[in-house]
Amino acid sequence: MTGRLAIVGLGPGDAQFCAPAADAALAAASDLVGYAAYLARVPTRLDQTRHESDNGAELHRARLALRLAESGRHVAVISGGDPGVFAMASAVFEAVEHGPPTWRALDIEVIPGISAMLAVAARVGAPLGGDFCAISLSDNLKPWPVVLRRLRLAAEAEFIIALYNARSAARPWQLDAALAVLRAHLPAATPVIFASAVTRPEESIRLAKLAEATGQGVDMRCLVLIGSRHTRYIIRADGRAWVYTPRSVPGFPCR
Amino acid sequence: MTGRLAIVGLGPGDAQFCAPAADAALAAASDLVGYAAYLARVPTRLDQTRHESDNGAELHRARLALRLAESGRHVAVISGGDPGVFAMASAVFEAVEHGPPTWRALDIEVIPGISAMLAVAARVGAPLGGDFCAISLSDNLKPWPVVLRRLRLAAEAEFIIALYNARSAARPWQLDAALAVLRAHLPAATPVIFASAVTRPEESIRLAKLAEATGQGVDMRCLVLIGSRHTRYIIRADGRAWVYTPRSVPGFPCR
Repeated sequence: MTGRLAIVGLGPGDAQFCAPAADAALAAASDLVGYAAYLARVPTRLDQTRHESDNGAELHRARLALRLAESGRHVAVISGGDPGVFAMASAVFEAVEHGPPTWRALDIEVIPGISAMLAVAARVGAPLGGDFCAISLSDNLKPWPVVLRRLRLAAEAEFIIALYNARSAARPWQLDAALAVLRAHLPAATPVIFASAVTRPEESIRLAKLAEATGQGVDMRCLVLIGSRHTRYIIRADGRAWVYTPRSVPGFPCR
Repeated sequence: MTGRLAIVGLGPGDAQFCAPAADAALAAASDLVGYAAYLARVPTRLDQTRHESDNGAELHRARLALRLAESGRHVAVISGGDPGVFAMASAVFEAVEHGPPTWRALDIEVIPGISAMLAVAARVGAPLGGDFCAISLSDNLKPWPVVLRRLRLAAEAEFIIALYNARSAARPWQLDAALAVLRAHLPAATPVIFASAVTRPEESIRLAKLAEATGQGVDMRCLVLIGSRHTRYIIRADGRAWVYTPRSVPGFPCR
């Protein structure tokens, strides 16, 4: 048997947002490798071996998956959202680059998924309607001054900003520090969206103005979207709001 | 009958990458509204009315869809990729904001999809492994100097850059101008990926170094990904290459 490795994105949570290609890769796997919270979304099968691990430890998990594939297993590495966006795909290729040459001969496939920022945006309207960026707020993998610099440049570029890994028990202060930096560069009324567990039963979405936005209550499952200066609310007939960013810069094209 | 409107993302092309939620929204529709090339991906049904339009004309298409929904129809507005990323969702909300108050009472749902940059990234490895941004290169909706400024700031921020609407018959020179600006800010060896019709039978992917990258042959269906200074190649056993961006900034964390 020739082994192979699929790095699979499950999407935001609800199976209705998981692509058939991901289901097919899971069905074909002899071994599932992943963080326990993501593995829990995949129904148990007696003929599949499950290799659960803690969050973090991505490189360890990647090497385990590569060794299993090398031994002839059909391995599915599981990510929430899209595996290429602050998830397992990059860790697997990092392990390949620094691993034995045999790993470069493996059949490795990445199955994309609906990343959290897309699912959150869809839930509230169209906040990503203009140019945008995605930044991981974790300073485990880059120095904090680099994060701050990128936030400043993103605000200057008028990007809508999606913050991944916004806050965790081990990183409690970074989100508030990031919001403070953005307050210095963006209007007070800029819409901020705190969205947790989108499409899942425990989904929660909170809208705030940048001036009042705080990281309180935000946890690992939360994605934070910060509008650009062009992002707007539309008040619906029932009093709720849609959030969207117009496709064009105000006043352009000149009519 | 109370009308409703779903703005549906079909994903990159192959039905294996279209979420079941999108299929369900299409199945429930009485009317399909969209650009002809996207409508062509949806099997014809005799009990559904199809409203085809040219590319461009997004606001016209959005208003048609809203009027149909207001009249009680179940409308699906169709986008390739994700409807919230340089596609129809923002146009619909723009039409709502400037339209009659009755449109604010409509049931509008956005069904997210796998956007082109995620599908392209998955095909070549994990180039979006670090912080990244998405920029539309069209100067139909924003002044060209704004595009150039955002490109410069994105390069300075060390974002991987996904270029949407990179080139068309009506906008033949903008991509080369953008690449020239990026050459002034990024290393000559920075990987550039030109990817067309990803996941479809006519898929074509070309890798280049930034120093040699040109827009020649690029058309409307092409997404261009430009790495950051940290994006790397891994040469596979068969001579092909994976492209990935490490999750961490080089030398960090200090071990």
